[in-house]
Amino acid sequence: MTTSLDEFNAFRTRMNESILGAGNLTINRFFALDHRAYEPGALGTRTKEMLGLVASLVLRCDDCITYHLIRCAEEGVTNEEYQEIFSVGLVVGGSIVIPHLRRAMARLEEVRSRP
Amino acid sequence: MTTSLDEFNAFRTRMNESILGAGNLTINRFFALDHRAYEPGALGTRTKEMLGLVASLVLRCDDCITYHLIRCAEEGVTNEEYQEIFSVGLVVGGSIVIPHLRRAMARLEEVRSRP
Amino acid sequence: MTTSLDEFNAFRTRMNESILGAGNLTINRFFALDHRAYEPGALGTRTKEMLGLVASLVLRCDDCITYHLIRCAEEGVTNEEYQEIFSVGLVVGGSIVIPHLRRAMARLEEVRSRP
Amino acid sequence: MTTSLDEFNAFRTRMNESILGAGNLTINRFFALDHRAYEPGALGTRTKEMLGLVASLVLRCDDCITYHLIRCAEEGVTNEEYQEIFSVGLVVGGSIVIPHLRRAMARLEEVRSRP
Amino acid sequence: MTTSLDEFNAFRTRMNESILGAGNLTINRFFALDHRAYEPGALGTRTKEMLGLVASLVLRCDDCITYHLIRCAEEGVTNEEYQEIFSVGLVVGGSIVIPHLRRAMARLEEVRSRP
Amino acid sequence: MTTSLDEFNAFRTRMNESILGAGNLTINRFFALDHRAYEPGALGTRTKEMLGLVASLVLRCDDCITYHLIRCAEEGVTNEEYQEIFSVGLVVGGSIVIPHLRRAMARLEEVRSRP
Repeated sequence: MTTSLDEFNAFRTRMNESILGAGNLTINRFFALDHRAYEPGALGTRTKEMLGLVASLVLRCDDCITYHLIRCAEEGVTNEEYQEIFSVGLVVGGSIVIPHLRRAMARLEEVRSRP
Repeated sequence: MTTSLDEFNAFRTRMNESILGAGNLTINRFFALDHRAYEPGALGTRTKEMLGLVASLVLRCDDCITYHLIRCAEEGVTNEEYQEIFSVGLVVGGSIVIPHLRRAMARLEEVRSRP
Repeated sequence: MTTSLDEFNAFRTRMNESILGAGNLTINRFFALDHRAYEPGALGTRTKEMLGLVASLVLRCDDCITYHLIRCAEEGVTNEEYQEIFSVGLVVGGSIVIPHLRRAMARLEEVRSRP
Repeated sequence: MTTSLDEFNAFRTRMNESILGAGNLTINRFFALDHRAYEPGALGTRTKEMLGLVASLVLRCDDCITYHLIRCAEEGVTNEEYQEIFSVGLVVGGSIVIPHLRRAMARLEEVRSRP
Repeated sequence: MTTSLDEFNAFRTRMNESILGAGNLTINRFFALDHRAYEPGALGTRTKEMLGLVASLVLRCDDCITYHLIRCAEEGVTNEEYQEIFSVGLVVGGSIVIPHLRRAMARLEEVRSRP
Repeated sequence: MTTSLDEFNAFRTRMNESILGAGNLTINRFFALDHRAYEPGALGTRTKEMLGLVASLVLRCDDCITYHLIRCAEEGVTNEEYQEIFSVGLVVGGSIVIPHLRRAMARLEEVRSRP
């Protein structure tokens, strides 16, 4: 992993501000909707974040995986639960998911090692 | 939808038998693993089937969606919960998910209407 | 093509109503946003519909292609322009786009033959 | 399978003529290049068609799979070899490949049953 | 962004030379066709580059996005037009496009800051 | 390329150990199956690794490409054969494959330059 979690977060924050600041209403509403999709409803945020994680894994989006790993950790997802989410993503998405799984494991170690 | 749920299931059963009967050990073990991935562990089967459904939705695999819709119904997923799984899949995967969402809704109506 | 344009439109209308009627606010807002994205701004609707068509083509979404083919026709896109949009989509997306291009051409003939 | 091999071939031939007849030089050259890619060189056509089949499988393009299944049969690919190509495609691409594998097996039975 | 625009261009130029120098006629003709697809015809190069940009965005190819961002800038695409291309790509491709949109915005700032 | 082949291999080995050490039986069996898929059968390992390479190329997975490039080199794949595998992948997958082809060529040079 060439980018630390702090660098990831800093770049993410800076560019989100740049995107939202550009003033395109469709984009800004999409960002609001993206936030809304994970708010608790019939399903809790914890389950929704797990859905977001497995979707990110099978679509092979490293930054999306990192984001949902962090959010899942905040929601109290356990190590065993992470492995089972990973196992579903791996079986659904196949061996091309493996490089993303390696980076997900490295990120998870990084997330777990933070105070 | 040009294929009914019964036709879907009949074709699925017949071709699975054909595939497994061809005797390729890697393929047969993959099918066993695909079954195993949804068995209860740290996460229950209900949650795992929801993970399978959202993964199928963002990967835009109609037959996979149909299969997990049926399994989710068997696990007691409610209409509101389906909508929230769909909403996560739609926001993650974008408007190209919509045609699959239409077919998912038609399938769900079909599943719900069965005795 | 096993489904006519009329059948496509009827299924699309019926299932959109079913989806929107399910009352999930995230999904309903996404549909509104999907409509909004093609409204005229710095780029005209004609250009935006061409963007939607090429995006649908490289993502290999037949129903999305059909929808944007119809909309492009309404915006006065010429046969030569369609071919150039197709050529960009084909070169970007490769030979796996060809089956979708065949169906797009059949749909275009159908669109052009309507009174 | 709602479309027979004969219907598949008839639609394919008719629409290829329509596409090539539209006179877009980029598209026409792409079709020539697509043909050229499978001609014998350092690798024989048999191996190249196997490459085309596995690529079509992991990209989940049913019509591409059908085409390369037919071509592989013409090149003398055996049932055991087909299964091994399928097994690589399945492991690389994951369980979302399975519905395409079912249709591939049905097509293969159809190809094998032709005089 | 760990790679500057100059590094991107240098690597791109060096490896294109390496690829074309390897002497595979199919590959070399594909590169020529890729160039040809954006030449003016019924649609101008400006529109075609916008098509290339949105296609690259929904296919989530950072290097392709960078290339078309540069070409669009050369064709005089305005900041507002970029945002509208981004908005179509985001709605079509969903939230998994967002990390690529962040990098696209950073690249656009880099392109705009060059003398 | 910001990561050398040695760094790639070191990260790959370390994270595979981390993944397998986490003790999820589905994941561990998938890794075993992924190994099994390339063992000689009706097709030799050399052909299967070529299948793995072209599948990785069209799915645009750089790490998978690197892995199969190394394995193909061990199986004695020649430069001309690599180019023909690349040409099939490029025509099937389109111009979005090109950035991955550039990195594949750089990796191949690195593989070839090792003692």
